[in-house]
Amino acid sequence: MARIRGAPCPGAAMKRDIDDLALFGGEPLFAEPRPIGQLDSPDLDDYLALVRKAFANRHLTNGGQLVQALEERLAGEHQVRHCVSVANAGLGLMMLMQIFGGGRPGEVVMPAFSYRGLPHFARWAGLEPRYCDVDPATHGLDPRAVAAAIGPATTSILGVCNANSPGDIDGLCEVAGQAGIPIFFDSVYALGSTYQGRPLGGSGRAEVFSIHATKLLNGFEGGYVTTNDDGLADLLRWQRNFSLPALRPPGAADADHVIGLNAKLNELHAAMALCSLERLDGVIDRNRRRYKAYREHCVRIPGVSVLPYLDDHAERRNYQIVILDIADAFGCTRDHLLAVLRAEGCAIGPYYSPPLHRWAPARELPDLPVTDHLAGRLLQLPVGEMVDHRDIERLGELLAFVAGNAERIAARLTKEIAIP
Amino acid sequence: MARIRGAPCPGAAMKRDIDDLALFGGEPLFAEPRPIGQLDSPDLDDYLALVRKAFANRHLTNGGQLVQALEERLAGEHQVRHCVSVANAGLGLMMLMQIFGGGRPGEVVMPAFSYRGLPHFARWAGLEPRYCDVDPATHGLDPRAVAAAIGPATTSILGVCNANSPGDIDGLCEVAGQAGIPIFFDSVYALGSTYQGRPLGGSGRAEVFSIHATKLLNGFEGGYVTTNDDGLADLLRWQRNFSLPALRPPGAADADHVIGLNAKLNELHAAMALCSLERLDGVIDRNRRRYKAYREHCVRIPGVSVLPYLDDHAERRNYQIVILDIADAFGCTRDHLLAVLRAEGCAIGPYYSPPLHRWAPARELPDLPVTDHLAGRLLQLPVGEMVDHRDIERLGELLAFVAGNAERIAARLTKEIAIP
Repeated sequence: MARIRGAPCPGAAMKRDIDDLALFGGEPLFAEPRPIGQLDSPDLDDYLALVRKAFANRHLTNGGQLVQALEERLAGEHQVRHCVSVANAGLGLMMLMQIFGGGRPGEVVMPAFSYRGLPHFARWAGLEPRYCDVDPATHGLDPRAVAAAIGPATTSILGVCNANSPGDIDGLCEVAGQAGIPIFFDSVYALGSTYQGRPLGGSGRAEVFSIHATKLLNGFEGGYVTTNDDGLADLLRWQRNFSLPALRPPGAADADHVIGLNAKLNELHAAMALCSLERLDGVIDRNRRRYKAYREHCVRIPGVSVLPYLDDHAERRNYQIVILDIADAFGCTRDHLLAVLRAEGCAIGPYYSPPLHRWAPARELPDLPVTDHLAGRLLQLPVGEMVDHRDIERLGELLAFVAGNAERIAARLTKEIAIP
Repeated sequence: MARIRGAPCPGAAMKRDIDDLALFGGEPLFAEPRPIGQLDSPDLDDYLALVRKAFANRHLTNGGQLVQALEERLAGEHQVRHCVSVANAGLGLMMLMQIFGGGRPGEVVMPAFSYRGLPHFARWAGLEPRYCDVDPATHGLDPRAVAAAIGPATTSILGVCNANSPGDIDGLCEVAGQAGIPIFFDSVYALGSTYQGRPLGGSGRAEVFSIHATKLLNGFEGGYVTTNDDGLADLLRWQRNFSLPALRPPGAADADHVIGLNAKLNELHAAMALCSLERLDGVIDRNRRRYKAYREHCVRIPGVSVLPYLDDHAERRNYQIVILDIADAFGCTRDHLLAVLRAEGCAIGPYYSPPLHRWAPARELPDLPVTDHLAGRLLQLPVGEMVDHRDIERLGELLAFVAGNAERIAARLTKEIAIP
């Protein structure tokens, strides 16, 4: 896919005064928005060649050859026994919650500092989210918080492996094991990352990955579940195809509660993901170089820092996203900076904010100090194949300019602009 | 898409003795299975040209140009204000049930004689199915049965417009209106059909259609909801994209209960459906000719009949499926005949059987005599673009042969074969 490399706007190269900021009427830095998604794409002709093959096979959905090939390749990539592809990662999470829910009302323990879709998926599965606090460094569930949250209503634990770190998987699995509660992981940002030297994918009862175009592996849309549990893989394959009675797996005698749906991936998406898989090492390599460039530019700017990819001296990381931390010392708030950057053409947002426990409809508000702290100070910077090193350099210059004029910008924003 | 026209097996043209039946060791009539899906496909190059356009537009999902074009075209086709595309029809049904459910436990009134996915979709929406009996001719919900089933737990009524008839839509809407309960329709077999001279799509609060490859309009996978209700269309567009708080529609102040998910259709599917839409008239015409050929062959066979497309002198019908009715006078049962036909290479099944109220997990078993009667005597014959007139002729010969030897076949099957 050719890049949209809208030329930077002439004259917008450097801001001399805060009036030059696009938010205050100046020319924006980027005429074409710079996104936060990976948006890598294989060569169109490679993709179309596979689509022609699928047409020739006359098997376009319901477990065609490309879907099977993709599942085999990904099982190998993740070093697990099973990869079960699904129409999207959200459906994969819903399916696991529903299976583990046992058909009774209950709760899914999950981090409050995470993706806003998670409570929705629990509710589709007939369950309520139970929010826990996270570790300040890994942003993953804090095992002590999970231990305290487990109760009679707990049906499962949903850990989240974030891009910057998979979190304390061993600690979480130990808590889950002691309580006899199934644990699984939202790993949509974890492809290409390792935990204790092994690829993510084999932890807990299952892990869920995404192949949406904005993720590392691009299948346009789609997702997959990895697991070493043969019985669970059988259940998922049954469930994604309407739990058709005729296809009930032999070991599923106690699975009357499993609700079926159409969550099948088809050949069009598998073709794209197979092409994309060939490009994975190159994508990660380019991500790492962008991340390092951001680090180098930001290290000189007081009050902001690019969050590190933890343990990347010993573990593989995918450098898929770049998270900027804005300290009080920066002089204007995260939301002020966000407004400035958006006006300049950055199609970005705050990182996991507001946190899940603060979304309406609010019930009893739990005390989650780490989550609340993190949710107020992080944002995602533009990344992926639509962002080049000149963009990063210019963003570095812009951040330095904002840092040097932060108090004036904050004063003007507080007076003029209603931050959403 | 070129046809798989596996030549009929030599020597299998006519059965002389019941030992010639494939079920008893003879050569099957069809080496390549003959399916019950439409399986029409546009020219591959037309499709790939649209995919290239989507790549060039750099907008592959989340409401790209092809999805928008498809929604506009289909809204025109159905003469409705809104078409909201979804990743599949099942998700569309789940979404409507969930919206109408209001976030409280309750029931969805639906026919027991229908598609086995329906109770699953209700349960994903946090609701229980309440099964009603159907009209013996239209196979649609019986308005009197619906009136009797409505109670304090009723959250919505799901009518089903079957291929052979849309059913008594006015009668159902009147019952729903009097009770103040929202009614919507599963119309996945109703594209190309009219009700009182107008295309299906505008009845009740909404109708749901499928663009799975086995349906009349082939988008590989996918579906769409039609509605004339602006507020409902807004809610569905919000819900299919995770109900993102930032995208909440202005009129949705009382929609806190709406649970979001990823149910977006993307450009790959819209491209296929757009190409397929150009072919719709031809597909329906070929369907009608196959249906008429089946009727002509079967009219001479005692004890079986092809169910009519009701009112097709005055209304448009799509002739998408062919349903065979097996009377007691035929001499062997529907399940016996099914076993015979499957062995001969017909990839077919019983029609809506077992009925929904008889699936496990059974609760209190309602008395639904019309449903039970219909569910025991109908099967679907092979149809769609993989079936030609020579196939139909040979199937006619086979059915005549079975009719002439029905008692011997039944006796042998009762002795030898355990029918599943």
